[in-house]
Amino acid sequence: MSTQPRLVLATRNQHKLDELRAILAAEGVDTAGVVSAADVDGPDVQETGVTFAENALLKARALVAHTGLPAVADDSGFAVDVLGGSPGVFSVYWAGRQRDDAANNALLLAQLEDVGPEHRGAQFVCAGALVTPDGREEVREGVVRGRLLAEPVGDGGFGYDPLFVPDGHDRSYAQLTAAQKNAISHRSRAFRELAPLIAELLA
Amino acid sequence: MSTQPRLVLATRNQHKLDELRAILAAEGVDTAGVVSAADVDGPDVQETGVTFAENALLKARALVAHTGLPAVADDSGFAVDVLGGSPGVFSVYWAGRQRDDAANNALLLAQLEDVGPEHRGAQFVCAGALVTPDGREEVREGVVRGRLLAEPVGDGGFGYDPLFVPDGHDRSYAQLTAAQKNAISHRSRAFRELAPLIAELLA
Repeated sequence: MSTQPRLVLATRNQHKLDELRAILAAEGVDTAGVVSAADVDGPDVQETGVTFAENALLKARALVAHTGLPAVADDSGFAVDVLGGSPGVFSVYWAGRQRDDAANNALLLAQLEDVGPEHRGAQFVCAGALVTPDGREEVREGVVRGRLLAEPVGDGGFGYDPLFVPDGHDRSYAQLTAAQKNAISHRSRAFRELAPLIAELLA
Repeated sequence: MSTQPRLVLATRNQHKLDELRAILAAEGVDTAGVVSAADVDGPDVQETGVTFAENALLKARALVAHTGLPAVADDSGFAVDVLGGSPGVFSVYWAGRQRDDAANNALLLAQLEDVGPEHRGAQFVCAGALVTPDGREEVREGVVRGRLLAEPVGDGGFGYDPLFVPDGHDRSYAQLTAAQKNAISHRSRAFRELAPLIAELLA
């Protein structure tokens, strides 16, 4: 890296890093020092929290401990109204310990097979956490409301994207391009909520 | 039947009928006219509600329509705190459309494998509904708090009984005799809440 790291994002996914950088750039932040966990050989973190906020904080704290730099982390999931917000933090392993999006989708649809359209409200939720070396911790949540379909639609995205149509849209998350989804996504909302705090911190 | 039916319980399970009769008898009710859906050839009802109360009401209303008599129905399920009350009304078909207690238990344990003992609070919930031919509808809820075990214990009971230890006990629901379980169960609590209303109605 040509520039000294100043803030680390808890991901090894370059697209997620690019997304955070773009959102920060829109806030006027110089993003040259914004790097990912891959750039600093960040630790693997067990996501043992029972809320999105807890898991995001666990990941950010671990990265602060590892690097001595401020860190941002996010944790997301799919929350169905009639399931009281489940799958929630258990979204990835809903159908069992193998990580299998198709199995997760099939199980969720089977569980809710008898649930009529008037009760299929759902939302994607993302908690974004900012943790600093001096112990400051901030969490902001991004939520996208919508409804659960009766069968998967679309080939894009991942996870429960083929089952979810955001309010005000007529296509599933899985039918949107990455750019379209990023523009409205729960994660982008959480990052945008955190952006002014990050801008202030790096100023 | 030697006695004219006066109240119908929405079940074909003789044990459940005996349980309601015993609770009513303790309230001083003459239970000779308290019969089950089996005695009146009651209808099959689709449990399409998304709450226990809705499902209990659906079953009781159908029986009132079928018999012209007051009816009592109950709907129960297992509610895990960190799942926001799920499986809840979806308890029976949690692992899919086959009705398979062992599969439901195994799936729930897999979903919550990473959840520590401090977050394993859970409860059994029963909604009892009383509906009369003149349109009166009453719902009372019975709840038994406890915790979710990490593996099944005990051979008795059914459903999620092997996973649940009630507060103040050191054995699972599945390790209790039927009499012991009935004495403390969520269903008996709901029935006991309804008993004075039923006593008044039949007086």
